[in-house]
Amino acid sequence: MILDVAFSRRDLPHRSASGRAAVIIDIIRASTTITMALHHGCTGIVPVRTLGEARARALTLGDGVLLAGERRAARVAGFDLGNSPAEYSRQHVQGKTIVLTTTNGTRAFQAAHSARAVIACAFLNVSAAARWLGRAGLDVLIVCAGRHSRFSLEDAVGAGILVDRLLGVVDHAVALGDAARAAHLLYSAHRSDLLGMLQGCEWGQGIVREGFGADLEICAQVDITDAVPVMRDGHLVAERA
Amino acid sequence: MILDVAFSRRDLPHRSASGRAAVIIDIIRASTTITMALHHGCTGIVPVRTLGEARARALTLGDGVLLAGERRAARVAGFDLGNSPAEYSRQHVQGKTIVLTTTNGTRAFQAAHSARAVIACAFLNVSAAARWLGRAGLDVLIVCAGRHSRFSLEDAVGAGILVDRLLGVVDHAVALGDAARAAHLLYSAHRSDLLGMLQGCEWGQGIVREGFGADLEICAQVDITDAVPVMRDGHLVAERA
Repeated sequence: MILDVAFSRRDLPHRSASGRAAVIIDIIRASTTITMALHHGCTGIVPVRTLGEARARALTLGDGVLLAGERRAARVAGFDLGNSPAEYSRQHVQGKTIVLTTTNGTRAFQAAHSARAVIACAFLNVSAAARWLGRAGLDVLIVCAGRHSRFSLEDAVGAGILVDRLLGVVDHAVALGDAARAAHLLYSAHRSDLLGMLQGCEWGQGIVREGFGADLEICAQVDITDAVPVMRDGHLVAERA
Repeated sequence: MILDVAFSRRDLPHRSASGRAAVIIDIIRASTTITMALHHGCTGIVPVRTLGEARARALTLGDGVLLAGERRAARVAGFDLGNSPAEYSRQHVQGKTIVLTTTNGTRAFQAAHSARAVIACAFLNVSAAARWLGRAGLDVLIVCAGRHSRFSLEDAVGAGILVDRLLGVVDHAVALGDAARAAHLLYSAHRSDLLGMLQGCEWGQGIVREGFGADLEICAQVDITDAVPVMRDGHLVAERA
């Protein structure tokens, strides 16, 4: 298994996702929110880029669909949900389809469209994601959503914990590129205090300033679910692993 | 001082170099070679992107200029020098102007053209580069040349050792972005064996395969010179710091 990491979606054209499993990581907060929603019984999440696309897709999906998304961290006016994982309780999302647009995370899904499989990974489900990938047996490209296409520490650490777990579940040789090795080292440096890392990184500080600091405590939880968001026909659906 | 790192030149449009000091790092091998040449008395190095540009600039510079460059690691046919720092002995380069084109490193200089100051840094001169930057007093953008615009471990570690040295010489507050903090951690993880890091990273292995493994021993040397390559009117010239 070849294991590669793109530290932002801008790296993607230089690391073809074709034939590989692409793993989208946006720890603060899209991949955490998506994982939480599916953990709580949401039937599917449709990631889209723009507000207009979100409204149009919601119309085609009919009654019972929830519109969700953020711009500048805050819930979009008129939408049912923002991008705060705390909002995605069982009470709110069970049995619902959600159309979601976020500034960075949902765009990474589009950027990885050529991949053979696309999943989302957060700290919440990293061991399950590793098991899912181990069974799929494809080469893996981890795509950090980053922030405005720039390197972000929390997504690099997220990539690193997934590398760590994959090394544990894959029993044949794993080839790590420079970026995968760097991500693994960055996880090792922060593994004893993931919450502190989230609170200290650039976007974590931004989220605190925007009043969503409590979300970081949710984002920092490791392995609370075995739900893996897997893209099937444009919907992220839960598969257990 | 704000201290930021671009892990490849593709990050540059998202991190304006304007008004800052840009530091180009291409450990294997352009910034090492440039530093070695100036250390050995070369009067100036003109980095250019293409082979055609190199030949044209050499013509305008007249007699005594040396043409240097590599493609796929090897010296360009008909050129005086390749990109191996071992070739840049005092005997070969003292008093000479060199026009240099390399696959990644020299392109990073062009990408940083909007910066207020542009210098090159290698392990060879990292403490001198930090002193030079400390005196300049500008915000700093470290630009990793990377390999084909991708993350490369050796340049990230090079950025990290410069962050480390800057933290030692700058006596006022230094603000580190996510990438600068990550680079510093990656240096810390490899500081006890920089040569091993160079031999193990993707491009280091490539250089060994191409028959230039001995160059890595030169690239791994720390602080052997106080020569800092500084861009003045399109020429990198030595300033002592």
